Amino acid sequence: MTLNEKVFKFKVEVILKKGVLDPQGEAIKQSININNLGNILDVKQGKLFELTASSKNREQAIKEVERICADLLTNSVIEEFTYYEVSE
Amino acid sequence: MTLNEKVFKFKVEVILKKGVLDPQGEAIKQSININNLGNILDVKQGKLFELTASSKNREQAIKEVERICADLLTNSVIEEFTYYEVSE
Repeated sequence: MTLNEKVFKFKVEVILKKGVLDPQGEAIKQSININNLGNILDVKQGKLFELTASSKNREQAIKEVERICADLLTNSVIEEFTYYEVSE
Repeated sequence: MTLNEKVFKFKVEVILKKGVLDPQGEAIKQSININNLGNILDVKQGKLFELTASSKNREQAIKEVERICADLLTNSVIEEFTYYEVSE
């Protein structure tokens, strides 16, 4: 981080593509039913990442975050990602 | 799901409390640096859940989701949760 860089914070959500089997979500749904915790029709489990980027400007930070999502955090065969900036 | 029930969809984010060691996040951060993917100061990994609830009204659905978060999805010693309703 140099003097003329700013800090941007992003949340990245990685979820399974539609149609991909989600055994973890299915197990949680069963557990909710067994324990009578509520009437839940569907559960999907995904991953969440908080990235704190230091960059010259927002465009550069977004570019980096997109690349990290595509190259590192997501298996594009079965998963897809979305991200959004958060203030704090 | 009975006739007078509606469907509500929620996203639940479970993240580690501040100060709790996050080795997964640390490993991702190192990987970003080694692969020169961007200037990332910090990475935190959490869990994401999409819950589809069937309920008489929104209040009831929120009550169920909160209970599921507290009793099943979160280890309250080291984690905390937030949730928000999504439209689709």
